[in-house]
Amino acid sequence: MKTQVAIIGAGPSGLLLGQLLHKQGISNIILERKSSGYVLGRIRAGVLEHTTVQGLEKAGAAERMHREGLVHEGVELVFDREKYRVDFTEAVGKSVVVYGQTEVTRDLMDARAATGGLTVYEAEDVALHGIDTDAPYVTYAKDGQTHRIDCDFIAGCDGFHGVSRQSIPADVLKTYERVYPFGWLGLLSDTPPVSHELIYVKHPDGFALCSQRSETRSRYYLQVPLTDKVEDWPDERFWAELKNRLYPEAAGRLVTGPSLEKSIAPLRSFVSEPMRYHKLFLAGDAAHIVPPTGAKGLNLAAGDVQCLADALADYYHNRSTAGIDGYSARCLKRVWAAERFSWYMTKLLHTFPDSDDFEQKMQEAEFNQLVLTENGAKTLAENYVGLPY
Amino acid sequence: MKTQVAIIGAGPSGLLLGQLLHKQGISNIILERKSSGYVLGRIRAGVLEHTTVQGLEKAGAAERMHREGLVHEGVELVFDREKYRVDFTEAVGKSVVVYGQTEVTRDLMDARAATGGLTVYEAEDVALHGIDTDAPYVTYAKDGQTHRIDCDFIAGCDGFHGVSRQSIPADVLKTYERVYPFGWLGLLSDTPPVSHELIYVKHPDGFALCSQRSETRSRYYLQVPLTDKVEDWPDERFWAELKNRLYPEAAGRLVTGPSLEKSIAPLRSFVSEPMRYHKLFLAGDAAHIVPPTGAKGLNLAAGDVQCLADALADYYHNRSTAGIDGYSARCLKRVWAAERFSWYMTKLLHTFPDSDDFEQKMQEAEFNQLVLTENGAKTLAENYVGLPY
Repeated sequence: MKTQVAIIGAGPSGLLLGQLLHKQGISNIILERKSSGYVLGRIRAGVLEHTTVQGLEKAGAAERMHREGLVHEGVELVFDREKYRVDFTEAVGKSVVVYGQTEVTRDLMDARAATGGLTVYEAEDVALHGIDTDAPYVTYAKDGQTHRIDCDFIAGCDGFHGVSRQSIPADVLKTYERVYPFGWLGLLSDTPPVSHELIYVKHPDGFALCSQRSETRSRYYLQVPLTDKVEDWPDERFWAELKNRLYPEAAGRLVTGPSLEKSIAPLRSFVSEPMRYHKLFLAGDAAHIVPPTGAKGLNLAAGDVQCLADALADYYHNRSTAGIDGYSARCLKRVWAAERFSWYMTKLLHTFPDSDDFEQKMQEAEFNQLVLTENGAKTLAENYVGLPY
Repeated sequence: MKTQVAIIGAGPSGLLLGQLLHKQGISNIILERKSSGYVLGRIRAGVLEHTTVQGLEKAGAAERMHREGLVHEGVELVFDREKYRVDFTEAVGKSVVVYGQTEVTRDLMDARAATGGLTVYEAEDVALHGIDTDAPYVTYAKDGQTHRIDCDFIAGCDGFHGVSRQSIPADVLKTYERVYPFGWLGLLSDTPPVSHELIYVKHPDGFALCSQRSETRSRYYLQVPLTDKVEDWPDERFWAELKNRLYPEAAGRLVTGPSLEKSIAPLRSFVSEPMRYHKLFLAGDAAHIVPPTGAKGLNLAAGDVQCLADALADYYHNRSTAGIDGYSARCLKRVWAAERFSWYMTKLLHTFPDSDDFEQKMQEAEFNQLVLTENGAKTLAENYVGLPY
């Protein structure tokens, strides 16, 4: 087979890139190691920045999101049971849309199906070849046979553990990493959200987050030690601890119910530079990971692929390499700003096992600076609704 | 002897308090362990916030400062040889006055002499008695004799190592402390400042600060390891290293000369709560220390004593205890905000021996957030020119 751009990974970033390229008349094939059902089963964040919304619009996959997504104009922050609200609209005149990543993926899959784009699911042993030559190609195994796709470029949208980043010689990449000393225990339930807005909670016993997928489906998180297992947290214990960390009024109106899903995820900051190696471009989690505290993961990925689609369109339509040559630097500028924000929010809102009294006071003073001053609220809002790319 | 307020310490905070009380008709005596010459010989910061300027005005000691002090409307920040300027006037409509602490002290001494206030220098073995009774008093030795001052209140303005804080039972105080893994090597010289504004420098080899006492007297600082001694830094080495850390244009115009003074100071964050114990009030360094990076030490002290003078005036004139009862909480609110800012600036601009690649990138991203965004510059300016008390 032959295509202009081979895309590795059919998560939201690969699918979005495929549709954006298609709209530009650039042929592409997506390879995905897992089944479509598996991809749709992943439970992930659902806070969409304005630029992500624009990306979905450009991809022709925004209709249901505009119908069903919940526009959030602010966020609640709770510090040791005192609650504050940051009003995004008031602070920076922008808002975010809450719409589950699963739904984004489904809409992009539907859009791709409607335009006849090829996605090969359950493609095994994907391998990248000749990425530093003029004739790169990708091989994979399916139904016992090896297949080959010749292409001009390869887009690595296959996440942190994917093959794309690993295909770049190790001495070319510089990586930066931070692993946090706790995890997030997430619980999904078909219960109405405790609030129509997200609630971020800093409590002496740890962080908590009240989020939502829709008006009838809630997603809650608790900071837990990395040594904890899901079995340690029967639903009753989860709900009791969430109530403990919330302020009384919210704890009182919290509707509980059986969990549909429950899992513990570690928190990590990671960046790999550069994001391009000859004919290979990395996008999203393949190049960088943020802790979920700032809701930036999906949005960074969407920014990367929009930047890449623009760059490739410029190359194919105008024979200019400026966009692809500048891709890595352009993305990384935004990536580092989001890494900073995610790291900052994580430090601000979690309880650190080795934190001393002075550091706890600094955390409290940082929080006050954020919620009690106009500039603090503006800085938070500006970063939360999304920096331009 | 008998007085209404016994003030321990004749540094700028004790002297300022004495004058503010005098203006309110409240009698006071200041006890100082050292000689007046020793007090005047201390080389300290010289960046005065607007509220400090107001305090000196109220004390009748602002005339020479207004004549000779340098109004600074901004500050330069250098990160790895890239320079940026934060314009205070543009960002928040305020400025600061650069005027050496020695000069402030001298003006306050002169003002006190003019009003006939008593300052006992070289008062040895100062001891506080009955601070939790209705009859507190202070004793000290001078010229081989023991003296006693009966008073209504005692103001502890005697710094970090003074006797005042130590007179409060240890189980009453909660202390918070952070010692930083480096010191500041300061050099004073009769050379024109390299710039008419302060220059804060973050360089891979460490922090540097170009400051000034007047248009002909400069004060420069270099971050050095705590193990370094002044003897390790002959003047030539100091100037060479300062040039290394500056950006080329500034290094080129730097005028060097023999040092008048050179010393290494450790950096510390410290807060002791509460700031009142019955009849004893702590003010300034006796209750809290900030690293000098934010230029907040003298300004916090000036804020404390203005707050205390107001509280005592309210007590003596209106028989209200609201001011003295609220003194500690009112001061600490501002203290913690300044502690945060000083800690933040210290982390932002120094090279930390144990910092990893990720942390260095976060430091760079924090710096960019500060100098490249409007909100960042506003937040810096708002804190630098001084929060209200």
